[in-house]
Amino acid sequence: MRSPRPQAVATGNETPPLPGTRFQSTVSIHKLRRFNILILVFRFAAFCFSLAAAIFMLTNSKGSDLPRWQDFEAYRFVAVANSIVALYSLLEIGASIWEILRASTILPEIIQVWFDFGHDQVFAYVLLSANSAGATLARTLKETDTCTASNTFCMQSDISIALGFAGFLFIGISSLLSGFRVANFIINYSGFYL
Amino acid sequence: MRSPRPQAVATGNETPPLPGTRFQSTVSIHKLRRFNILILVFRFAAFCFSLAAAIFMLTNSKGSDLPRWQDFEAYRFVAVANSIVALYSLLEIGASIWEILRASTILPEIIQVWFDFGHDQVFAYVLLSANSAGATLARTLKETDTCTASNTFCMQSDISIALGFAGFLFIGISSLLSGFRVANFIINYSGFYL
Repeated sequence: MRSPRPQAVATGNETPPLPGTRFQSTVSIHKLRRFNILILVFRFAAFCFSLAAAIFMLTNSKGSDLPRWQDFEAYRFVAVANSIVALYSLLEIGASIWEILRASTILPEIIQVWFDFGHDQVFAYVLLSANSAGATLARTLKETDTCTASNTFCMQSDISIALGFAGFLFIGISSLLSGFRVANFIINYSGFYL
Repeated sequence: MRSPRPQAVATGNETPPLPGTRFQSTVSIHKLRRFNILILVFRFAAFCFSLAAAIFMLTNSKGSDLPRWQDFEAYRFVAVANSIVALYSLLEIGASIWEILRASTILPEIIQVWFDFGHDQVFAYVLLSANSAGATLARTLKETDTCTASNTFCMQSDISIALGFAGFLFIGISSLLSGFRVANFIINYSGFYL
């Protein structure tokens, strides 16, 4: 009799798993490892870009008489969103490394996959929203005296927003991958098939 | 010998399927039908909201001496994004109804699931981006003379953007559901498991 779970097929072991443990064939462990490494790469890219975007925006106030990022709501949104995504990505990098090294998740697997996917999805949307708002403000400011008074300010804001969009791209891809993990979890462990 | 494909398990039929046909147990057909009806509901909601948002924005030019939506880049983005999403949702409603009635997809299934998910994902991001841009412009305009000259213009833009955000919510949920269909397709038909 073949078990519908492919992990169990490869081990050839029919004993029900102990609570909290998982059957994993060598093939499946290797596949999961490769998948986790892929997620780690995208998380690292998201971390680098959003951290750079946050730093560029947070350091964008040159003097009291020149425009400062704090004065503009959309730029505050860009700074905060990129900082949150950088921090979250750093935590997720830690969780990914833990998972690759120990072959188990920090939280129970069901919570971990939903936590990762939920946060990825929400933060991807938040980051896109912040950067779109920032880009609109940057274009509006170009028509005003702000950019004439301090071209460096506008240039640095533009760079920050561009880096933020790159960060969004990578957290968006991470969200697709962690979404696939959630679906895989639902389909293989709850037996829900379409 | 049990087949790893649950659809085949329920039919008890081991003959390989003919090209273009699919094994579907009664349970699985009912489940797919319910899932498709759920997608249809969200697509219909996305269609209503994005159509309303597009109409509110497109009719937002009261006279030649008052501000018009065409004059603002972000509002043009809102109008175009909502129109595209409304049109796309209408097509997808048609495709969903076809699928519910005929129990088969219009395009070959692999193309259809990727087409739906890809477009849902991209249009959800585009709509969010457009509405965030529109919201930023709306806030900026409130500090200028534009809203003093024509309060109706600003009010109507705000309503359009709010409707657009609601549209985004529903296309975002559709994107999650169609993403689940893609993952289900990959896992069950290509045999790719984590």
